[in-house]
Amino acid sequence: MRKREASALLIGRFQPFHNGHLEVVKAISKECDRMIVGIGSAQLSHTFENPFTAGERHLMMSRAFHDEGLENYFMVPIVDVNRYAIWVAHVASLVPPFQYVYTNNPLTRRLFEEAGYEVRQAPMFNRSEYSGSEVRRRIVNGEHWEHLVPRGVAETIHEVKGDERLQEIMKDHSPEATI
Amino acid sequence: MRKREASALLIGRFQPFHNGHLEVVKAISKECDRMIVGIGSAQLSHTFENPFTAGERHLMMSRAFHDEGLENYFMVPIVDVNRYAIWVAHVASLVPPFQYVYTNNPLTRRLFEEAGYEVRQAPMFNRSEYSGSEVRRRIVNGEHWEHLVPRGVAETIHEVKGDERLQEIMKDHSPEATI
Amino acid sequence: MRKREASALLIGRFQPFHNGHLEVVKAISKECDRMIVGIGSAQLSHTFENPFTAGERHLMMSRAFHDEGLENYFMVPIVDVNRYAIWVAHVASLVPPFQYVYTNNPLTRRLFEEAGYEVRQAPMFNRSEYSGSEVRRRIVNGEHWEHLVPRGVAETIHEVKGDERLQEIMKDHSPEATI
Amino acid sequence: MRKREASALLIGRFQPFHNGHLEVVKAISKECDRMIVGIGSAQLSHTFENPFTAGERHLMMSRAFHDEGLENYFMVPIVDVNRYAIWVAHVASLVPPFQYVYTNNPLTRRLFEEAGYEVRQAPMFNRSEYSGSEVRRRIVNGEHWEHLVPRGVAETIHEVKGDERLQEIMKDHSPEATI
Amino acid sequence: MRKREASALLIGRFQPFHNGHLEVVKAISKECDRMIVGIGSAQLSHTFENPFTAGERHLMMSRAFHDEGLENYFMVPIVDVNRYAIWVAHVASLVPPFQYVYTNNPLTRRLFEEAGYEVRQAPMFNRSEYSGSEVRRRIVNGEHWEHLVPRGVAETIHEVKGDERLQEIMKDHSPEATI
Amino acid sequence: MRKREASALLIGRFQPFHNGHLEVVKAISKECDRMIVGIGSAQLSHTFENPFTAGERHLMMSRAFHDEGLENYFMVPIVDVNRYAIWVAHVASLVPPFQYVYTNNPLTRRLFEEAGYEVRQAPMFNRSEYSGSEVRRRIVNGEHWEHLVPRGVAETIHEVKGDERLQEIMKDHSPEATI
Repeated sequence: MRKREASALLIGRFQPFHNGHLEVVKAISKECDRMIVGIGSAQLSHTFENPFTAGERHLMMSRAFHDEGLENYFMVPIVDVNRYAIWVAHVASLVPPFQYVYTNNPLTRRLFEEAGYEVRQAPMFNRSEYSGSEVRRRIVNGEHWEHLVPRGVAETIHEVKGDERLQEIMKDHSPEATI
Repeated sequence: MRKREASALLIGRFQPFHNGHLEVVKAISKECDRMIVGIGSAQLSHTFENPFTAGERHLMMSRAFHDEGLENYFMVPIVDVNRYAIWVAHVASLVPPFQYVYTNNPLTRRLFEEAGYEVRQAPMFNRSEYSGSEVRRRIVNGEHWEHLVPRGVAETIHEVKGDERLQEIMKDHSPEATI
Repeated sequence: MRKREASALLIGRFQPFHNGHLEVVKAISKECDRMIVGIGSAQLSHTFENPFTAGERHLMMSRAFHDEGLENYFMVPIVDVNRYAIWVAHVASLVPPFQYVYTNNPLTRRLFEEAGYEVRQAPMFNRSEYSGSEVRRRIVNGEHWEHLVPRGVAETIHEVKGDERLQEIMKDHSPEATI
Repeated sequence: MRKREASALLIGRFQPFHNGHLEVVKAISKECDRMIVGIGSAQLSHTFENPFTAGERHLMMSRAFHDEGLENYFMVPIVDVNRYAIWVAHVASLVPPFQYVYTNNPLTRRLFEEAGYEVRQAPMFNRSEYSGSEVRRRIVNGEHWEHLVPRGVAETIHEVKGDERLQEIMKDHSPEATI
Repeated sequence: MRKREASALLIGRFQPFHNGHLEVVKAISKECDRMIVGIGSAQLSHTFENPFTAGERHLMMSRAFHDEGLENYFMVPIVDVNRYAIWVAHVASLVPPFQYVYTNNPLTRRLFEEAGYEVRQAPMFNRSEYSGSEVRRRIVNGEHWEHLVPRGVAETIHEVKGDERLQEIMKDHSPEATI
Repeated sequence: MRKREASALLIGRFQPFHNGHLEVVKAISKECDRMIVGIGSAQLSHTFENPFTAGERHLMMSRAFHDEGLENYFMVPIVDVNRYAIWVAHVASLVPPFQYVYTNNPLTRRLFEEAGYEVRQAPMFNRSEYSGSEVRRRIVNGEHWEHLVPRGVAETIHEVKGDERLQEIMKDHSPEATI
């Protein structure tokens, strides 16, 4: 009989996945049998806050995980429901069964605790050095950014021309008003 | 044959229902046979602006009404549709038939008037003393707040641990970004 | 301190509420402090299967409850989400806290049990005599139907001209195709 | 000052627009200053029942109208809302103001009458000869069909390869199950 | 055989359509056989930013086009999808086939280019003189505004009492909170 | 520089994943560098046609793939959009970039071809022996079914008590009607 695996859930937007995220993932992977990585706000893309599609983020992260030798993970896009009272049930139906949740976000902690899950403190990383918004700012301004993300992430961004896309849309105009 | 009742509609978010709301409800209840109380933005909860679920608000208010001896009312959760041109039809399909609407909100007035309803000025209450945001601010800061709301409301908030929830989520982080 | 009430949940479409429903409600009301009656498929109306709006059903039932002297109940419209894995969370956020659920529907039983609720067998009534579809069939065919429903229900149907509506739409054409 | 125009609303799916529809349109156009033609179920396409997109139907009909010298019309796609109690408000917000509605569909008649509009009987056409499903059946079976529709409709169907599309999808499999 | 027409797409919110918009439309109409004018954010109305319904905007613009002798156009309401990765497919399914897109909005440009469409620079107009927000501001403040829009637009706004509506709702309160 | 991988897309509902599916997956995996497996109708569960959640299906399949030594795959839940004209864009935004699609479904073929993708014939398997509905029928009737699915699938179904769930809900009643 297959051994019941201890699965941990971790959710982020990963716009893009950076070295700080990688440190967290590596630390958690040592504390569980399987990790479920939720790609949050999966429906968003093509804005300054959320430039990359869920599929592009999936590819970035799977390359980074592969290069690190990480294997026991599930990666699952999670679209927003904009209704917090059903958010945990929404997540739980989309991902494989899990036993605990890693988060430092107080609302996430609260929602999973109200639903009866065990919530653990996510490992810390250097937030002043690594942040998605800093990576995006550097891409927009044409500064160096590749050293802040795993190699597979940088390759993916170049491959899908994500840097060029981000530079063009940085003003974040709504597409509904084209005149 | 049953007498045709004069029903009045009043809609609010009631986050939470406070003594000012109660004054309004009591005044209107004297001017109609039946009052329909719409619990607006019913899909929202677990944020600083909207901490309580529609069900929790329903319970708070029904206790407050019971303690006041108010009986002839309907309480109906109304989820947002985010499209004002159909909002009146949305409300009208969810609540029992009504003859007039009490409101001091100019957009609400306009929408119901364009749809042909009679709109009346809602009774005034002391807005500097009573407001939902002030109650929430006091809960977050650990100040006294129970005297601003009916007894049944305070009991419900304690019962569902709503004060603790509000303190934890006051930063109002999105749950989509848990790293 | 307010005594913690034992609340029971019962959900139906009530198209329309009939004497069989009333028997069930009366039986359950003796076994709990408060009953929560969910008006299911609240978004539907104007079809043969679902002729009455949620608001009309709300009015019918509150009149029937009033005439029976039933007082300790909450009535809550529940719109469909068409996604069973989140249905219990959806319901639970809209209604006041409840301790057990009455149902004879196997899927409803399963969903609430998977979510950890206590589920009880709903009291039986004479299904060969009382059914919503039979009431609707009789209305369409111009046969007697008023004796199958509580007086307040019949009054409401006449008041909103629900019998006439049902007769007109019995063919249940889609309004999208008007030519 | 611009003369107030008498506008009539007519809604159909027009899958595709055929000679029977054209007869109706021509008859109504003589009884009003402006006609509003709603393209119903605008979100549907690529099935046997609804093979053509709203945009393709728009093009077909505007060519047919142009060839007939019809000028005073608005053409507006109407997506389904699947909730009849708000359907009239939905339509009314998308189309220019109108005074009456032409329909032979009892539900459409009922909904617009409940909302206070004047509803008129749509002109008759030969339903045994002209019907959308017959045109689609003939396309699927490779029989003659062009004589049943206006010339601009046939041209458009050929141009967008709609006949080929219909033949391929006639089994109407769901795209969700591709294995 | 019908000549294949070169169709251009132009999308705006047109709240309201003003003389600057008209200049753009007239310039584009000379460069193509048919113009498709998308009425963006079609679901919005009754706010300061978006006071007019899609149907009212449709009427305004068709009057303005008629007075200018513009004939070869399609006017299509486009509701927002709030998900940019599918926005082009959404638009393309609602409007007739088109060959190129006119826009000065960088995100719109990017989205249509990623989908393989030819995107052209929209003609310029005097933005300091003509803007929707300036027209709305003047209406709210009771200043002159009619000279900034085509005659048919002003007539329509007066006819639907749009100026009065805008003055009443200028505070843009949410209708969900009516107490 | 990372080699550009040839990625193939395959979508199914996998209710549940059976030995026929596994044959197809193994055959395709030899023809591409990476396979993207879309879990279709991801929002559905708890019905006879769709008993398992997307998360449960994800777990079943990843166990089956692991036991077969399959490694180069992405697994992505795809919720239905019920609007075929935008379905390909919806899928493409959720999954990593792909070059071709394997399918035997004519509508899927048509939709991806209209969007410009290369579509290939999916490998055949013995449909009379292996089918999701046959597996579900056997589970409901208490017959042998484990030999029709990979070992990891059977283990998962037992682990989540999916067989018991299917037996209880086989009548597929709507949960909206619990009386």
